[in-house]
Amino acid sequence: MINDTVIDIAKNLMNRRSVTPEDEGCQEAMKAFLSTLGFNNETMVFEDTTNLWSRRGNEGPVFCFAGHTDVVPSGPEDAWKTPPFTATEVGEFLHGRGAADMKGSLAAMLVATREFVRDYPAHKGSIAYLITSDEEGPFINGTTRVIDTLEARNEKITWCIVGEPSSTTEVGDIVKNGRRGSLTGDLTVKGIQGHVAYPHLASNPIHLATPALTELAQSHWDDGNAFFPPTSFQISNIHGGTGAGNVIPGELQVCFNFRFSTEVTDKQLIERVTHILDKHELDYDIKWTFNGQPFLTDTGALLDATQEAILAVKGEPTVLSTAGGTSDGRFIAPTGAQVIELGPVNATIHKIDECVKMSDLEQLADIYYGILVRLLA
Amino acid sequence: MINDTVIDIAKNLMNRRSVTPEDEGCQEAMKAFLSTLGFNNETMVFEDTTNLWSRRGNEGPVFCFAGHTDVVPSGPEDAWKTPPFTATEVGEFLHGRGAADMKGSLAAMLVATREFVRDYPAHKGSIAYLITSDEEGPFINGTTRVIDTLEARNEKITWCIVGEPSSTTEVGDIVKNGRRGSLTGDLTVKGIQGHVAYPHLASNPIHLATPALTELAQSHWDDGNAFFPPTSFQISNIHGGTGAGNVIPGELQVCFNFRFSTEVTDKQLIERVTHILDKHELDYDIKWTFNGQPFLTDTGALLDATQEAILAVKGEPTVLSTAGGTSDGRFIAPTGAQVIELGPVNATIHKIDECVKMSDLEQLADIYYGILVRLLA
Ligand SMILES: [Zn+2]
Ligand SMILES: [Zn+2]
Repeated sequence: MINDTVIDIAKNLMNRRSVTPEDEGCQEAMKAFLSTLGFNNETMVFEDTTNLWSRRGNEGPVFCFAGHTDVVPSGPEDAWKTPPFTATEVGEFLHGRGAADMKGSLAAMLVATREFVRDYPAHKGSIAYLITSDEEGPFINGTTRVIDTLEARNEKITWCIVGEPSSTTEVGDIVKNGRRGSLTGDLTVKGIQGHVAYPHLASNPIHLATPALTELAQSHWDDGNAFFPPTSFQISNIHGGTGAGNVIPGELQVCFNFRFSTEVTDKQLIERVTHILDKHELDYDIKWTFNGQPFLTDTGALLDATQEAILAVKGEPTVLSTAGGTSDGRFIAPTGAQVIELGPVNATIHKIDECVKMSDLEQLADIYYGILVRLLA
Repeated sequence: MINDTVIDIAKNLMNRRSVTPEDEGCQEAMKAFLSTLGFNNETMVFEDTTNLWSRRGNEGPVFCFAGHTDVVPSGPEDAWKTPPFTATEVGEFLHGRGAADMKGSLAAMLVATREFVRDYPAHKGSIAYLITSDEEGPFINGTTRVIDTLEARNEKITWCIVGEPSSTTEVGDIVKNGRRGSLTGDLTVKGIQGHVAYPHLASNPIHLATPALTELAQSHWDDGNAFFPPTSFQISNIHGGTGAGNVIPGELQVCFNFRFSTEVTDKQLIERVTHILDKHELDYDIKWTFNGQPFLTDTGALLDATQEAILAVKGEPTVLSTAGGTSDGRFIAPTGAQVIELGPVNATIHKIDECVKMSDLEQLADIYYGILVRLLA
């Protein structure tokens, strides 16, 4: 694989059925490749999850490619135009599960690294890989535990590119330079069950809750900032009632989610929600699930190098964005690393007939190479 | 059966397994009894439901006993102390399905009628029976269709006693002189489904609906009056969400019910709800189910006769009430009839080990007799 093209390497990885948390030898193939380039490989197995930490060089600054070898399930294979776990060229595109998310990115990282190491064998600092097979799943035994291990030995990442498919139309048109935080609340509002004909003997939790839910839905949480839209609150699920039309239910279940900017913290949001629920004198239980702090890389050498490299390869400036869901960047950024996400066009990810334009993968390798040159040459 | 005691007649009816809409010969037994007393019987079959209209005399005023021969299912028979469809004396009580709701009442009506006709063979006006076997079920082929038939030929009921178990501790302690109306709304509030991370592309129907639901729950519909509590609005069921915590649902389902007084009409309630939903600019569908108008008999000869008869038999005045669910009285009252409900103690109805105090049935027959005397002797 060491002298393969980016397309051949992508195919090699895509032909492995590495549905979360399986790795199916992807990391072994990457290790062999990186060993040849002078990397030291460290496999970290946590429970059912295989992770790789690989590093070339002992000095700082540390530039890290981060990514995952696992993919989401294919769904019904018959519905695909080409077999999902057999990488297949169709015109200008490479089809198969993981083409865009994110085995194509891994191939581009490897080719960029090979070319850079050959051109600058005595580069500054270190190059590293942080690879997990648990990004699409529960993410508890993946990047977060590798980071814990590195932190415990005070091994720091300076700059990190996560290879998630950030682009929308052309490769590099969007770079994610941050992500919002995510916080989920599972709320149970308690009332007293009864018959609708005898409402004075019951206490309707739906009636009790709607004023508080209205206040939560209409609250202004922050103004956002130059990089983040205002924090948003959304109720995703609400359920109350026995099914019978003549029974006042005893409980109401509400699930809601915050996507929050760097202008607030999860602690502040919890305090404000608690204040609103208490003000409305609700009898309730609430379970909070914290899915990740927001992070932002709004300036620095990594962002400069990335913007310059994209402009050089594409002839167009990139656009910075913090929109969308969460990524493993949320686990890396809190260590103090500058983190961005840059990868292929995301139009087909997690869908049937996932594919990537083959020239996009080649350009992505060129962009990654350009970033390495600007930071470590 | 014609010379049987009220207890024997109750047992005869209770031993028939007449679960809605079955009648199992109850009405045939009643017809034989009433024929002997000079009644003309008219059986009206609508779909699966057998109904009886029986009348003695051709003149007005028309006094009518209304009731039902069907019973609710027994549930697991093993759970009963005595077989549910074998009327069994246990101390002072008669046990079995229908003891209180309402074969015991039917037996008391028949004995009261027999004694009255023997004592006053040339009574004023007419005595009638309106009996259905579809009161506990969907009630679409029962009392409402008999009333339609009578109305079509302009045959009017002046006074009606529905034998529903109105009493709470002692027979006659409560008479229902009206019932609230019932109106149900099934509301679907429409939004646009989306991902919680992209709320600007979605429209959350839960957020859109809670202000309107709050206004509905907090609205003052009327003040009630001397006989009815204020109209009450209750949301019985609310459901929205796909189950996933990161999806904004496309629809919210809400089911609510009004129990309303004679101070408003169903039409006014529908107008007010529609106004509130429209004011909040909701995109919605709503299906209304009208379960019955409220009715009230707040004065007149029937109520006077009933209060006097109960005082004479029990030595205690009765209490008038309009609380609780609906009854077939709602179909009879709109014809202009004075309607009340008077029957045994309702503590065990629809439950396992349904029973009635035997002396209560005897007293109920005495009360019914006293009412007949006061109105038609
Ligand atoms: Zn991914
Ligand atoms: Zn009944």
